Amino acid sequence: MHAEIRQHRNLQGTLEQVKTLLKRMDLVDNLVRRQSTHDSPSRQELVKNIVRKQNLTSLQQKLESLHPADLAYVLESLPLDQRQIVWELVTPERCGAVLLEISDAVRESLIATMPHTEIIGAAQHLESDEVADLVQDLPQNLVTQVLNAMDSQHRASVQSALSFPPESVGAFMEFNTLSIREDVTLEVVLRYLRSRKSLPEQITHLLVVDRIGTLKGVLYLKDLLLHSPNTLVSELMAPEPVFFYTDDTAREASLMFERYGLISAPVVNLHKQVVGEIHVDVLMAFVHEISQKEMLNQVGLSEEEDLFAPIWKSGKNRWLWLALNLMTAFFASRVIGAFEQTIGNLVALAALMPIVASIGGNTGNQTGALIIRGLALQQINQSNLRYLLMKEISIGLMNGIIWGSIVALFALGLYQQLGLALVMLTAMVLNLLIAALAGIFIPLTLHKLGRDPVMGSSVLLTAITDSMGFFIFLGLATVFLL
Amino acid sequence: MHAEIRQHRNLQGTLEQVKTLLKRMDLVDNLVRRQSTHDSPSRQELVKNIVRKQNLTSLQQKLESLHPADLAYVLESLPLDQRQIVWELVTPERCGAVLLEISDAVRESLIATMPHTEIIGAAQHLESDEVADLVQDLPQNLVTQVLNAMDSQHRASVQSALSFPPESVGAFMEFNTLSIREDVTLEVVLRYLRSRKSLPEQITHLLVVDRIGTLKGVLYLKDLLLHSPNTLVSELMAPEPVFFYTDDTAREASLMFERYGLISAPVVNLHKQVVGEIHVDVLMAFVHEISQKEMLNQVGLSEEEDLFAPIWKSGKNRWLWLALNLMTAFFASRVIGAFEQTIGNLVALAALMPIVASIGGNTGNQTGALIIRGLALQQINQSNLRYLLMKEISIGLMNGIIWGSIVALFALGLYQQLGLALVMLTAMVLNLLIAALAGIFIPLTLHKLGRDPVMGSSVLLTAITDSMGFFIFLGLATVFLL
Repeated sequence: MHAEIRQHRNLQGTLEQVKTLLKRMDLVDNLVRRQSTHDSPSRQELVKNIVRKQNLTSLQQKLESLHPADLAYVLESLPLDQRQIVWELVTPERCGAVLLEISDAVRESLIATMPHTEIIGAAQHLESDEVADLVQDLPQNLVTQVLNAMDSQHRASVQSALSFPPESVGAFMEFNTLSIREDVTLEVVLRYLRSRKSLPEQITHLLVVDRIGTLKGVLYLKDLLLHSPNTLVSELMAPEPVFFYTDDTAREASLMFERYGLISAPVVNLHKQVVGEIHVDVLMAFVHEISQKEMLNQVGLSEEEDLFAPIWKSGKNRWLWLALNLMTAFFASRVIGAFEQTIGNLVALAALMPIVASIGGNTGNQTGALIIRGLALQQINQSNLRYLLMKEISIGLMNGIIWGSIVALFALGLYQQLGLALVMLTAMVLNLLIAALAGIFIPLTLHKLGRDPVMGSSVLLTAITDSMGFFIFLGLATVFLL
Repeated sequence: MHAEIRQHRNLQGTLEQVKTLLKRMDLVDNLVRRQSTHDSPSRQELVKNIVRKQNLTSLQQKLESLHPADLAYVLESLPLDQRQIVWELVTPERCGAVLLEISDAVRESLIATMPHTEIIGAAQHLESDEVADLVQDLPQNLVTQVLNAMDSQHRASVQSALSFPPESVGAFMEFNTLSIREDVTLEVVLRYLRSRKSLPEQITHLLVVDRIGTLKGVLYLKDLLLHSPNTLVSELMAPEPVFFYTDDTAREASLMFERYGLISAPVVNLHKQVVGEIHVDVLMAFVHEISQKEMLNQVGLSEEEDLFAPIWKSGKNRWLWLALNLMTAFFASRVIGAFEQTIGNLVALAALMPIVASIGGNTGNQTGALIIRGLALQQINQSNLRYLLMKEISIGLMNGIIWGSIVALFALGLYQQLGLALVMLTAMVLNLLIAALAGIFIPLTLHKLGRDPVMGSSVLLTAITDSMGFFIFLGLATVFLL
């Protein structure tokens, strides 16, 4: 394990080495092909095969020296044809571990090329929670085959892991826990531990349970070390540890792990019986994945994208967002269309109107980002909502007057029309107020409807500030300037 | 510790309880004041003081039952005046811990109200790395006072923690490590451990070092438990553990912790001598903070904002971004201004031009988000850049033709001019190509310049797609339609 990680300081270098080996294989193929006129075809094949085999061996050795996570990185960074060559060289017992580390999009493409027997084989080398993670994207009949190939205890764990909602603590927990009873001595505990083949390296404590598996406390390994073997577990255990229910969300759990600096915590069912444990590394990977996903969600990319996916597939991934944006743009365009006569009379309006819309969109998105952050940190509630509303409205008013004046001066300098400048100022103030309201209520509403406010807030908000910006500015101009 | 965390399931409820207690104190004040006509002033004061003291006591008890992280949450969620009352009730030995958990913006406001002696006192109850974290925002003379109040060893650690760059592993590591020599038996190790007053609960291993402190390996606690006391450390230790240098970035470290599922890792100097250890909980909090900051950075909020900061301060926090946006909007406005004559001749152009600009901005931001993600995951390098470029250009071309045609049909339906529709289609295709290029090269350039591509990419990109969208569309219209 540790030797594998040693390469971490030069992951890019590792990738280059793999690429060089792959290129060398290609070169040999071409070289031999070019010499084909001189040699007999069989001799040519022979040379080709020998050199190819040598290169394959060095590539395979290189791959075997990599940690599954690094292998996943290499696979993700290779174009489709090279990825396939490398994937076929990964030994069956490591396939599962690599698939777990790889991004969803690439995993899908790899699984699609694997024979069913290989997929079933790969699953045999994984823990129950890992299998559950892996089979989620597989067709039902294949899942059944994977499950049937397991022993009954393993199968039961996988099935219960699969029964928990996707982003719940249950879906992320590990089933294998070490639990002891509170009425035994440390000596008994030590004997029990020594009777096991191996213990996990990262273990910090044992769970203390009663006869029917109810969580009573935890016994830290360090207490096991420091006290006399005659001490009873009940004397040393820390009672009332933080625990999670299987249906708590992984997001809540990760917030709590972060807040209280937890390393692992027991997971219990509704009767407070221990069913597993959840560890910080799993949650850290989850947080990481979520934050990456949110960034993509913000621009309407709901799915992870394989850098090397076919153009058609990547292009389609962006359609939903494009369609949504097109609709809002059409709407804004029709708002302007309604004032075509006004614009015909005063063309300067066409040049100035995007300013009102654009500043509105930007300030609205600032407010939105603060609200989304407040919601994520659970800082926003009924009692401070009114305060927040008043505050954002005041800021909108203040910034509207300050920046609206600057814009008005700009317009005045260009077109020497005081009326136009005043319309510009008024429109800026009003649109900034609308932006503040939209920035508060859009994420709040999405949140109340149980949707992720990160996804969609920005489109909706810009649609409102654009259309309203055009409408207010052109409307005021129509009333006061014509 | 554990009892404190028990409240985690109802943090909102805790907050409400605190608020109720605060409100009750206010009520008493008012009630007593209203009765003032009947009673003598001294009696009135007496009643007020008694009831006030009772309420204060229950509030203080409530606060003391809270974990520092939860207390931080309560403080962040209270308006300024109530926040001050609660803050004054926090016991001195917990002040430091609470300040560490609180957001930068709120911390600043709390420290501003504390007498220097209290700040110095708060620092005495913290670990060296925590003190270093805390004093970063303090004025230099106060830092000196804090340092002078410490014993020399503690002070030296704080000073060396302060000497590391802000987001480096050195700045986040803990100085207190447990290290042993490889040529001793487990019995000696056990005796050494028992001689210490206490061990950290989360400990999983001891560091193995040589005579001059060079890292040789780690000894897992579980191995200490399972093997005979006569075994030598060198026989059991895991050699070549993953370690970090003090000047590695915390971001790299967190990626590696996540990738390899680490819990803690030794930190060494350039001579590979152990200087401390870095733990997963610190890095998890760091990742969490970074991801929150990035969301705010995207909309130009460089500083965290206290929900209850004065309006003037919050308003100013948004100015840089507003100013930047105003400049780009002015520029786009001047591009349109150059075509005023064209628009005067064909007003439909004014209604259609925002569509071209808006779709360009959105697709550009999609490409940008994918590139930023690729950069964060270190998936983009010289060798696949050309491939990515070709791919994004192809997608831009494909989506430009598909969605440009839809837009062209929309324009044709509205204005019945084939020429206008064709100009629209061409402008869409060209602007989507520009958006693809901008979406790739803007984040890449910012990254190469050593800046965070998340901050600023979007403004720059929208500036380009807006201006170029207007320019291409109105330019084509001027050439072909007039």
